[in-house]
Amino acid sequence: MEPNLSYVFNAKSVAIIGASRNPGKIGYATLENFVKGGFRGKLYAVNPSAESILNVKCYPSLSSIKEKVELAVITIPGEFVPQAIEECGKKGVKACVIISAGFSEVGNVQLTKKLQAAMDKYPHMPCIGPNCLGVMDVKTGIDTLFLPRYRLMRPKKGKISFISQSGALGSAILDWAGSKEYGIAKFVSYGNAMNTDEADLLEFFAEDKETDVICVYLEGVRHGEKFFRIAKKVSEKKPVIVIKGGMSEAGSKATASHTGSLAGSAKVFDAVIKQTGLIRADSMREVFDYARVLSSEPIPKGNRAQIITNGGGYGVLTADAMEGSSLKLAEMSMENRKPIINASPSYAVIKNPMDLTGDADNNRFMVAVENAMKDENVDSIILILLFQVPTLDSDIIESMSALLAKRKKPVLVVSAGGEFAKMHMKLLEKEGIQTFEEPIDAAQALHALTYYHHENKK
Amino acid sequence: MEPNLSYVFNAKSVAIIGASRNPGKIGYATLENFVKGGFRGKLYAVNPSAESILNVKCYPSLSSIKEKVELAVITIPGEFVPQAIEECGKKGVKACVIISAGFSEVGNVQLTKKLQAAMDKYPHMPCIGPNCLGVMDVKTGIDTLFLPRYRLMRPKKGKISFISQSGALGSAILDWAGSKEYGIAKFVSYGNAMNTDEADLLEFFAEDKETDVICVYLEGVRHGEKFFRIAKKVSEKKPVIVIKGGMSEAGSKATASHTGSLAGSAKVFDAVIKQTGLIRADSMREVFDYARVLSSEPIPKGNRAQIITNGGGYGVLTADAMEGSSLKLAEMSMENRKPIINASPSYAVIKNPMDLTGDADNNRFMVAVENAMKDENVDSIILILLFQVPTLDSDIIESMSALLAKRKKPVLVVSAGGEFAKMHMKLLEKEGIQTFEEPIDAAQALHALTYYHHENKK
Repeated sequence: MEPNLSYVFNAKSVAIIGASRNPGKIGYATLENFVKGGFRGKLYAVNPSAESILNVKCYPSLSSIKEKVELAVITIPGEFVPQAIEECGKKGVKACVIISAGFSEVGNVQLTKKLQAAMDKYPHMPCIGPNCLGVMDVKTGIDTLFLPRYRLMRPKKGKISFISQSGALGSAILDWAGSKEYGIAKFVSYGNAMNTDEADLLEFFAEDKETDVICVYLEGVRHGEKFFRIAKKVSEKKPVIVIKGGMSEAGSKATASHTGSLAGSAKVFDAVIKQTGLIRADSMREVFDYARVLSSEPIPKGNRAQIITNGGGYGVLTADAMEGSSLKLAEMSMENRKPIINASPSYAVIKNPMDLTGDADNNRFMVAVENAMKDENVDSIILILLFQVPTLDSDIIESMSALLAKRKKPVLVVSAGGEFAKMHMKLLEKEGIQTFEEPIDAAQALHALTYYHHENKK
Repeated sequence: MEPNLSYVFNAKSVAIIGASRNPGKIGYATLENFVKGGFRGKLYAVNPSAESILNVKCYPSLSSIKEKVELAVITIPGEFVPQAIEECGKKGVKACVIISAGFSEVGNVQLTKKLQAAMDKYPHMPCIGPNCLGVMDVKTGIDTLFLPRYRLMRPKKGKISFISQSGALGSAILDWAGSKEYGIAKFVSYGNAMNTDEADLLEFFAEDKETDVICVYLEGVRHGEKFFRIAKKVSEKKPVIVIKGGMSEAGSKATASHTGSLAGSAKVFDAVIKQTGLIRADSMREVFDYARVLSSEPIPKGNRAQIITNGGGYGVLTADAMEGSSLKLAEMSMENRKPIINASPSYAVIKNPMDLTGDADNNRFMVAVENAMKDENVDSIILILLFQVPTLDSDIIESMSALLAKRKKPVLVVSAGGEFAKMHMKLLEKEGIQTFEEPIDAAQALHALTYYHHENKK
């Protein structure tokens, strides 16, 4: 029997070992997030010196809980953790999340050994951590992140799961995703990875029905060969986007102090990326741009992209951004270009990029997108809508949304500007259309989508 | 006598030739933006069939205006423009902005020749355009952009001027800058550049006291040798940030249809960039990140940057982002590290990146920044503040602002997250501290600043 990570996210009964009455403590914040965060399972607080905290009954010890406990969240001081793991194992707890710190990350070799020994006695009980933020599952309400909701916005439910070796980075990103209204399925900060590492988590997410795309912040890899084998297998099933810390010499030295990882050289990791089919990103913006497109857009049949714009400069910059990527410019048939030419003035450029020019109205855009959508030489579309000109009416949102709802190829929208432009982009986003502020962002995201489904699988 | 571009931005009397009563027309929108936009000079409307428009008295012709007119804004149909230029020349108008289209961009060679002949008769009267949005000066209220304010937010006053060959791109960027609260001095969209080109504008902005940093969107260059010579001279005086359309083969072909420019090869332009000291940017985000840092931060004495963070992963990514740039990691003296070590727990890493760790409070940050600011081995600082953790108190904004107000070296702040983090960043921005969402953004902006003041001038 393999250890079953699903209890980490789907446990129906949870005990907080180290629940605290003191609102300044991690053991309070953790309990509070379960109470306030919509967890609907049974919740137990373990604290020998309290009756109840936040209306949750307290137990003096784990063993004094009569009922079954599927997940234990451990927030007690590090020195008591090995014993707590023993107790969990004896009680038949299915999985643990160890928030507590004070192990290898501070050089405490002896305590680390003791914890390892305790874990090894119960090989079927997976443990996340220690020294981590733990996990969050938007669907089940399991939320061990001991950070208050006013500081860390919880994102809405979605299909993207995020694995972060770094806790602080993970929490900032989750908060950021929350404010951007990007949907998240599951989040894990796995800290020292003594028992469950990035490869185990990848393997779990590969089978997870709630997860369509996996994002990873990685500094080092615990077991090179295992990671390689699993990453390759998982990549074939679902897109895995990786942002890697320690790609530079200076950054690599810093990872050694940060998570104790050996980052390895950039060259080696780039080779791993290529051979396993992982998708590399260089910023968090890229991670989520790729993830939202990969989790929501139709699969392109090939790499031929059509650019449609009412701003020539933006068309030019989009074409520039495609160079060196997996994309190439589509060549639409004369049959499908004809109706667009007929709907446009003579100075419009009905090629690729297709510049409908600054006086393009809704009809010109609709005719252009409709014909590009049905053209067999077009695999994907980048549509640039500049709302600064009055000829582009707000009504286009409704008609374009209706047209794009039927799309069988990816259509990514670029719109730059201030409040007026942003309002329209939000309306499109609500209809499930992915929007971007800059040509380069859309081109890179469309590249990631195309790369994953084509080049990557070759 | 050289043509004097300053009348384009500083005219005390303006005539709108082609002012219209019809709110759908460019001639109406243009007049409206002068009326509503705070222009305090004399305003004349030229329209033979109206008494007054928007409470501005109409004249049947330019010559029927008895008073002096310094700037003429021309919005009549293209075919009448050559004659209007003649009239402007005869009346002694100091400068013209020709919004009207219908010339070389639609292949009308004859009309273009006629206009050129008219312009050539009055060589001391500079003309912007035709086929452009024209100009905006935040200080004087001169604003020929015929786009309504609800669609195109006008930015606040600042020290950055923007030259755009593309009108639609320029307007989207201006709108975007407005919503980001980036300050702008002057804006020009110069269209067909028949009489005044990018080099002339660069030369003018080099002397303009309201402009500290010049940003340019360029597709092609009208006169290669002239551009090279002027760009080199201007770069020595002020930073010039360039985003270049048509750097790829496909993009280059598109510029030919868009602005009729020959974009030239990326290699050639990269060489021009290097030899003239221009600063290259690849996205609008980069353009403005570089511009705001170059227009507001102290000049770094050298290239040694110190990273200070409460999130190890962000420190690692910042160090990574510096690789291949003009920056290197500073090495603080033991004397200045000592007080930070004393104020921090043993697991904090007081090196570079300096990881104050997730439980860093305000005091730990203050001690760290204070000592880095006075360390002679540190030329600049990237400060990462992750507000997801409760130990980082909101009070830090006030004390950090007070400390940074005294800075003599650049300090760039990174903070990622949702509403809580953003609120704090806005407070810092109000104190004149530049903030960034991602390590890579801050590292690139600090690189641009360091590159301009050091490598560039070698």
